[in-house]
Amino acid sequence: MSYNATCQLRVRYGETDQMGFVYYGIYAQYYEVGRVEAIRNLGILYAEMETKHHILMPVMNMQVRYLRPARYDDLLTILTTIPELPEKHIRFRYEIHNEKGELLNNAMVQLCFLDATSQKRINVPEFIKNPLMPYF
Amino acid sequence: MSYNATCQLRVRYGETDQMGFVYYGIYAQYYEVGRVEAIRNLGILYAEMETKHHILMPVMNMQVRYLRPARYDDLLTILTTIPELPEKHIRFRYEIHNEKGELLNNAMVQLCFLDATSQKRINVPEFIKNPLMPYF
Amino acid sequence: MSYNATCQLRVRYGETDQMGFVYYGIYAQYYEVGRVEAIRNLGILYAEMETKHHILMPVMNMQVRYLRPARYDDLLTILTTIPELPEKHIRFRYEIHNEKGELLNNAMVQLCFLDATSQKRINVPEFIKNPLMPYF
Amino acid sequence: MSYNATCQLRVRYGETDQMGFVYYGIYAQYYEVGRVEAIRNLGILYAEMETKHHILMPVMNMQVRYLRPARYDDLLTILTTIPELPEKHIRFRYEIHNEKGELLNNAMVQLCFLDATSQKRINVPEFIKNPLMPYF
Repeated sequence: MSYNATCQLRVRYGETDQMGFVYYGIYAQYYEVGRVEAIRNLGILYAEMETKHHILMPVMNMQVRYLRPARYDDLLTILTTIPELPEKHIRFRYEIHNEKGELLNNAMVQLCFLDATSQKRINVPEFIKNPLMPYF
Repeated sequence: MSYNATCQLRVRYGETDQMGFVYYGIYAQYYEVGRVEAIRNLGILYAEMETKHHILMPVMNMQVRYLRPARYDDLLTILTTIPELPEKHIRFRYEIHNEKGELLNNAMVQLCFLDATSQKRINVPEFIKNPLMPYF
Repeated sequence: MSYNATCQLRVRYGETDQMGFVYYGIYAQYYEVGRVEAIRNLGILYAEMETKHHILMPVMNMQVRYLRPARYDDLLTILTTIPELPEKHIRFRYEIHNEKGELLNNAMVQLCFLDATSQKRINVPEFIKNPLMPYF
Repeated sequence: MSYNATCQLRVRYGETDQMGFVYYGIYAQYYEVGRVEAIRNLGILYAEMETKHHILMPVMNMQVRYLRPARYDDLLTILTTIPELPEKHIRFRYEIHNEKGELLNNAMVQLCFLDATSQKRINVPEFIKNPLMPYF
């Protein structure tokens, strides 16, 4: 009982560091791409969250376990999982694999919902919760 | 007849790429730091430009000549020059040197002024032009 | 008489700035993606340039003209052109359009070739020049 | 019984996102600056770790709790703590405060030590452990 989606992206040269690995802070961007594409598959445009619904989604928590480095030009597969129906906040779990199928890292990112005007916290909006319902 | 200011910054690990050089796109951030500190020396806070004066300053043109690479942990000196009194737009010239005094790159960045609400172009505001007057 | 290739990429949230535009330094990464994909279409892997051929390709010059901002979640089309057969260096010209077909910016990026061991400049390698020959 | 160091840095425009906050992935760079400056205070140059000692220090784990956003031009204070004498790996704890003294986020980053040639794990080198000894 969870919602899962995968997407792929290719490591850019500018994302590597002088160790020849993807810099450890870059994965936050990859996780962002993962969750945006995951909810796009549900018919939700994150871009409209701010412009149309006036809701901000700041990150509250991030936990990353780095197992193997990603390298330049690797084609990565990001598995994004929403493990439970969101209420006050929403959690995303991630696994990133390379083309050899090796698990590079896994992570959890938790976000909350803010009213853009008041910057006060609100519960998960219906237009996010409803399309997730069938998966739980 | 020009306005000049210098500031220093140290290269971060995450700014290098796998060549062991600072990634060529990172210098745009260094030039941004250069111009923000240059106008801070004039008593102008770029942060207030948007929040207080409702003016945006998007970049129109950038030209960079890369001569030598910057490397991790280098302490760089950014020389920022405003070569002429701004009217419709403002130009900044840059030279970045490392601790050995070697010139790493030079650049020109041109910005214009937008009214934040209408997103229409406006002339240079008086609170920017006035403190620059004595230098020209 | 030129070599052209296009690729697409979607703007990430982390690439925007508080103006709501893609930060002006990010385009350097987009141009990098453009040239890597352009030469991949010719059967050349940039990733092998360093690991297999021991050649580095630092950027010598970049010129960007910013016309309109890209915004979060825009699907951008990057047109990459090699306008002449490379000899001592290679030039790439770029045009980035959004989904409405608006031209957002254009650019020129010039790179040279370094022997990775000696860090001395070399001419364009045959494995790059040869697949480009038919286009000129 | 711990080793503590503080440093300051100012938020760059390119580090904000369209929410007007520092992008959540940027803090990884700030933590990196924190630990590099913390060990510089002990007389250890991270830059020499790779070039002189042939040791790499990849990140194994990162945990971040985001409490309040940092904003453009904020002058941040990074408190870096090494909470225990490192053996097989080294842990850094972080607290970032803004100029008002508000705690913005706290984090833990754990790194290990790799021989650069074999890419095999090694114990903490003596030149890192020894200057830390007096603090524990």
